[in-house]
Amino acid sequence: MLSKSEFISSRERALIYFAKAGIVLSDSEKENIEVADFGLGKLNEIGLEILVYVNTERCCAKELVLFPYQICPEHKHPEINGREGKEETFRCRFGKVFLYIDGEPSKNISCKLPKGQENNFTVKKEIILNPGDQYTLNPGILHWFQAGEEGAIISEFSTKSSDEFDYFTDPKIRRIPEIEDVNNF
Amino acid sequence: MLSKSEFISSRERALIYFAKAGIVLSDSEKENIEVADFGLGKLNEIGLEILVYVNTERCCAKELVLFPYQICPEHKHPEINGREGKEETFRCRFGKVFLYIDGEPSKNISCKLPKGQENNFTVKKEIILNPGDQYTLNPGILHWFQAGEEGAIISEFSTKSSDEFDYFTDPKIRRIPEIEDVNNF
Repeated sequence: MLSKSEFISSRERALIYFAKAGIVLSDSEKENIEVADFGLGKLNEIGLEILVYVNTERCCAKELVLFPYQICPEHKHPEINGREGKEETFRCRFGKVFLYIDGEPSKNISCKLPKGQENNFTVKKEIILNPGDQYTLNPGILHWFQAGEEGAIISEFSTKSSDEFDYFTDPKIRRIPEIEDVNNF
Repeated sequence: MLSKSEFISSRERALIYFAKAGIVLSDSEKENIEVADFGLGKLNEIGLEILVYVNTERCCAKELVLFPYQICPEHKHPEINGREGKEETFRCRFGKVFLYIDGEPSKNISCKLPKGQENNFTVKKEIILNPGDQYTLNPGILHWFQAGEEGAIISEFSTKSSDEFDYFTDPKIRRIPEIEDVNNF
């Protein structure tokens, strides 16, 4: 689990990225940035900083911050109770994003996978997003992404977000309980 | 109808606002900014510059540019073929937005209505959005908005956008045909 000091310093670090990208947040939003280590306790390798603008029954918008080379691990958004899985568009606002999706593997890929983690990253079709680039993921497709050396900010536009139902390739991942503990600080 | 020179200069002007707000666009997006005069031929009073990032059957994201005191006229998004009307969240990114929605009229309102247009603006509950502020509109609610003296950029996160079905209070408004003409330049 994240320590309190790691949580606080990561939130402050995320604010620096928002400032660099010229994205203005309200004071209450600054205090509600989520720091997700996916229960792995290796935030700087596998983790994500998330600000949810809106998440209703019908649509959702977020900003995702990635520190340099930080990875959002491989996952997909399944159908829930007969409702089609989440559809999402990733738009790079700052930095560079290496996005990997299910499909024909790219010959050369630009990411830096942490050692010993190779089995948890199975899809290798690479899409590189620079600021102003975006990509729309169909529901149910496996995907993961990593920031480049500067870190990155991604705007996510999607249908309803229900993170608790996401499927992760790495069975050690715990998406929700760790976050709730963290957000009790 | 907009003249070709007015259309081109308005698109270039919109790009200046995106640059001021630090919002990076691709070259093809720059060439696809829509300039809407709503068929009234008074773009600087009543008009909107629109960049659609994504608009699928399920969700939509756009940036809206307003020049100083420019107004998006009063309208609502009705139910279409049994599908609930559009739900939208407006997030101010730059400048100031005076948003008016159906509800208890505010005692003092900050907008500047063009003379002789009063009957086309019937809802007067004021919500002021500065950068970092946002507001979510329920489907079917009448609303309109005006930028302050600096102009404004609004990020809109919503369900599917079907502008051609919007209801406008001013019966002179023609949302779509004018745009198609303009976009044929």
